[in-house]
Amino acid sequence: MAAYVPPIEDITFLLGDVFDFDAVVRVLPGFEDIDTALATSILEEGGKFCAEVLEPLNRPGDEEGCRLENGQAITPAGTIDAYSAFVAAGWPGLSGDAKYGGQGLPRVLQILLDEMIASANLSFGLFPGLTRGAVEAIGHHASDALKATYLPKMISGEWTGAMALTESSAGTDLGLLSTRAQPVGDGSYAITGTKIFISSGDHDLGGNIVHLVLARLPDAPKGVKGISLFLSPKFLVNKDGSLGSRNGMSVGSLEHKMGIHAQPTCVMNYDGAIGWLVGEPGRGLNAMFTMMNAERLFVGIQGLAIGEAANQKAVAYARERLQGRSADGARGPVPIIEHADVRKMLMTGRALTDAGRALAVWTALQMDVAARHPDAETRRVADGFVALLTPVVKAAFTDFGFETAVMSQQVFGGHGYIREWGMEQYVRDARITQIYEGTNGVQAMDLVGRKVPIENGGLVKRFFAMIAHDLQAAAGDANLGEAVNATSEALIRLEGLTDYMLAKGTDLEEAGAAATDYLRSLALVTYGWLSVRMAVKAAAKANAVPGLTQRKTALARFFAARLLPQTIALDAAIRAGAADVVGLESELL
Amino acid sequence: MAAYVPPIEDITFLLGDVFDFDAVVRVLPGFEDIDTALATSILEEGGKFCAEVLEPLNRPGDEEGCRLENGQAITPAGTIDAYSAFVAAGWPGLSGDAKYGGQGLPRVLQILLDEMIASANLSFGLFPGLTRGAVEAIGHHASDALKATYLPKMISGEWTGAMALTESSAGTDLGLLSTRAQPVGDGSYAITGTKIFISSGDHDLGGNIVHLVLARLPDAPKGVKGISLFLSPKFLVNKDGSLGSRNGMSVGSLEHKMGIHAQPTCVMNYDGAIGWLVGEPGRGLNAMFTMMNAERLFVGIQGLAIGEAANQKAVAYARERLQGRSADGARGPVPIIEHADVRKMLMTGRALTDAGRALAVWTALQMDVAARHPDAETRRVADGFVALLTPVVKAAFTDFGFETAVMSQQVFGGHGYIREWGMEQYVRDARITQIYEGTNGVQAMDLVGRKVPIENGGLVKRFFAMIAHDLQAAAGDANLGEAVNATSEALIRLEGLTDYMLAKGTDLEEAGAAATDYLRSLALVTYGWLSVRMAVKAAAKANAVPGLTQRKTALARFFAARLLPQTIALDAAIRAGAADVVGLESELL
Repeated sequence: MAAYVPPIEDITFLLGDVFDFDAVVRVLPGFEDIDTALATSILEEGGKFCAEVLEPLNRPGDEEGCRLENGQAITPAGTIDAYSAFVAAGWPGLSGDAKYGGQGLPRVLQILLDEMIASANLSFGLFPGLTRGAVEAIGHHASDALKATYLPKMISGEWTGAMALTESSAGTDLGLLSTRAQPVGDGSYAITGTKIFISSGDHDLGGNIVHLVLARLPDAPKGVKGISLFLSPKFLVNKDGSLGSRNGMSVGSLEHKMGIHAQPTCVMNYDGAIGWLVGEPGRGLNAMFTMMNAERLFVGIQGLAIGEAANQKAVAYARERLQGRSADGARGPVPIIEHADVRKMLMTGRALTDAGRALAVWTALQMDVAARHPDAETRRVADGFVALLTPVVKAAFTDFGFETAVMSQQVFGGHGYIREWGMEQYVRDARITQIYEGTNGVQAMDLVGRKVPIENGGLVKRFFAMIAHDLQAAAGDANLGEAVNATSEALIRLEGLTDYMLAKGTDLEEAGAAATDYLRSLALVTYGWLSVRMAVKAAAKANAVPGLTQRKTALARFFAARLLPQTIALDAAIRAGAADVVGLESELL
Repeated sequence: MAAYVPPIEDITFLLGDVFDFDAVVRVLPGFEDIDTALATSILEEGGKFCAEVLEPLNRPGDEEGCRLENGQAITPAGTIDAYSAFVAAGWPGLSGDAKYGGQGLPRVLQILLDEMIASANLSFGLFPGLTRGAVEAIGHHASDALKATYLPKMISGEWTGAMALTESSAGTDLGLLSTRAQPVGDGSYAITGTKIFISSGDHDLGGNIVHLVLARLPDAPKGVKGISLFLSPKFLVNKDGSLGSRNGMSVGSLEHKMGIHAQPTCVMNYDGAIGWLVGEPGRGLNAMFTMMNAERLFVGIQGLAIGEAANQKAVAYARERLQGRSADGARGPVPIIEHADVRKMLMTGRALTDAGRALAVWTALQMDVAARHPDAETRRVADGFVALLTPVVKAAFTDFGFETAVMSQQVFGGHGYIREWGMEQYVRDARITQIYEGTNGVQAMDLVGRKVPIENGGLVKRFFAMIAHDLQAAAGDANLGEAVNATSEALIRLEGLTDYMLAKGTDLEEAGAAATDYLRSLALVTYGWLSVRMAVKAAAKANAVPGLTQRKTALARFFAARLLPQTIALDAAIRAGAADVVGLESELL
């Protein structure tokens, strides 16, 4: 099995050539000294860590899995050392707030590091990933005292975080949760209830585990308005910051899962666990969404990452595996990469992954702009794009990542089904990314129900206008003309479809029947745009990397010719309306 | 978790109303006394066995898996008893040749039984399924002496069969295999080599295990023309039919797989194992294809079966699981089956499964006609349709089955990722069906490279003409008009696309770049036709089953409106040609 190769060349190209990273960050206060060269050198180091330390643990960790010993979750061999090295090298704090000891680097570096971590070892990446989500929520909503106590050690990675939201009867519908928080009288609360699916809920990596728990106050109203967010650590923290006594929480069991076996996913019992309010009472969902939005992008990146890793392995295998004759029948056996059907699977995975990474970088840059740009209107526009694209990144990256993993496994034939080859693990691990942090159906409903209607469609139209503008500049290119035309046509179709959706207004059945297909359509058009943009920028690059222009041009043409046509079908399916989807009485289904 | 319910009502409808089973078999010699009522009562019994005996072993068998003890493959607890009961009830011989003790029932009953077995326990179903494949090859190609010795006990299920084709360097390309067969001098051969991925290669179910092994004779030419097929049993058989000494074969190891854990998939070492030629020397591939074609249909049925089981469970769960509010916002929490996005997943799975089963029944009836009809031309036409549809059934059923399993798992949200719920096993088990017995890419190449060109397209056009004729009869129906029109349009598009493919002739790159998409297109149009046909026949049924007409009409409309549009995209993608697929130098990928 070929080793994972961090996509540093592509990263440098995206930052330096495709999105003009240097110019973007130069005007962002605090980022003036950051440029592509610095980013590349940091990410090269990060990539090395992922390839050399994290990937070797990936398959053994899957085989060994986690276990519970005397109430303590035990991670697979090697995880503790790898995590210690990860912390010692300072990776947890890469984009963390400098005020609390973080390095304060741009979000775009973070997501690129996240991608490499998840390509190498998705289970491992959840430890820092969830910690960062918790840090976001605490940073935005908690009291200064809580921040001072928890953020420095979480940003350094010494302590980790966990999000305790789901209960067995309250998944997507958190309004149904029943965990209770009773005021103790000293400003703290005693939390009682059972949560399921709690990633990193317990582990043996040392330090404290900071749970952010959704629960109800005694006088809380029913539904989502009665939910508050609490910080509850595994160990109570002494005044001097040292770890005190064990808090009233325990691991009920470890979940038995399809994949991510090296990640201890816990059923957590809170039995009067002491916690503190994060944000206002009854505003827990609001605070949770701060954490959730960060996690949704993170999970999208996980999907992308699996696609990258799986495609890499499939390409390497297809170059080595000799089966069948050449297309002209003259040679045999030939590497299967020469067979058009195999090539199509590899090109599909590569095209989806390259365009996905471009969208990841673009979205992360918008986040950096939204957080720091001196101009309020620029911040507002960037923030809008992030809100619009968060569900798209989460759902499309993970759907395409899963599809790429499946296709890449298929390239291996029977070997792909055998555990030793590692391909089936990608499929099993990728599968969770379509489910957790809000299923992809929930993401699609968020897009059509909340995001597209923003400014009565003004936000999404602004996004389309930007794409159209970019495509216009590429029109007439001899190598790309067809791809540009196809993408422009798909964009116009999508604009029409968006009007169709907006005209349906708040009809939940129409939205639900259309949502998944609409999200995929929007993703495909966005990918088509970015594929073209990458090809244009590659061709324009001075001192072009050998082969880069051919590669990006071929991928843009392939994407437009072979994948973008899906948007025609999706458009037709959506316009057929909801009646045929929901018409049958449910008892007859 | 809801229990699996055998789809007896749908089976009766398909046989009795959709395909006029009674009239078809009445003219087939040997089948004169068989009718829908008899078939239904047999399959009801079979379904009961599947639901009551086989399904309860499915999840435990997945968890326990197989193991190797002293060189012997051990199946999970309960398998031996279940198999004994299966044999005692006479199920292995259902469609077996009466001359050798089989019940000689139509193929259509066999595939419907196969479906129920695989819905309940895919791993288990491979034991009788592979035995039947071996029986086919022996029955068609072996000497009378071999037939007399082996067929009766294989048809009764007392002995089982295995197909030993693949080697680590020879998968799709069997021409590369290196296993050797040395004449011993007494008409037998000593076989030496190592085979991988051998399902049912060894087990503890008792009796003999009859391996059909592809190997090369000493003077054999390179490539596929040097391959011969040999019968080599685990135990040599004494003159009186009793089991003699152990033959020179052993289990090297059990494969560690993504799924079908209850099926012992073996690495087999043949160390001078005694065997006998089946068919002519150098014609092994020909004999193997007899077995392989039977297995391809069988594997297709497995895909269908997983789709059926997974969809059933998802519908049952969606009726019970309460989350979110009703579309009008008035009620909550409501069963998630009320949410349009969930409903779309359930309808998709149901529509694909219902149409797939219809195609399975239709194809199996063609097999029965091809085998027995008194008129040679009728037999020839039916045989052509079977040849045409074999790769479609294998690839489309398994792709749709996998997609349905994934969607059904998605309906369960986080619970779908937890092993105890059983949904993730369907995904893992379904995945192998897209790979073994020729990957789905190989099936697609068989369709476009070998089957569509038959009679320069005459065969496939005859198939299309039959569909067009059937659709014409349904045109103008008030409830189905749109669906009929959409299907007719899709058919016309497919006919044009077929001409496009035929015009490309023997260009392997064009064929390869188009193959998978073309197969899916043909499958979707065929499904569209059968969905309409079922709706028409349901409406025409005297004493209609309550709800059947609504159900089948809704599914036909849904299929045409929501799934058939994919054919537009597939058409566009194929017509974009191979250049963008294969153009990039493989080093640059």
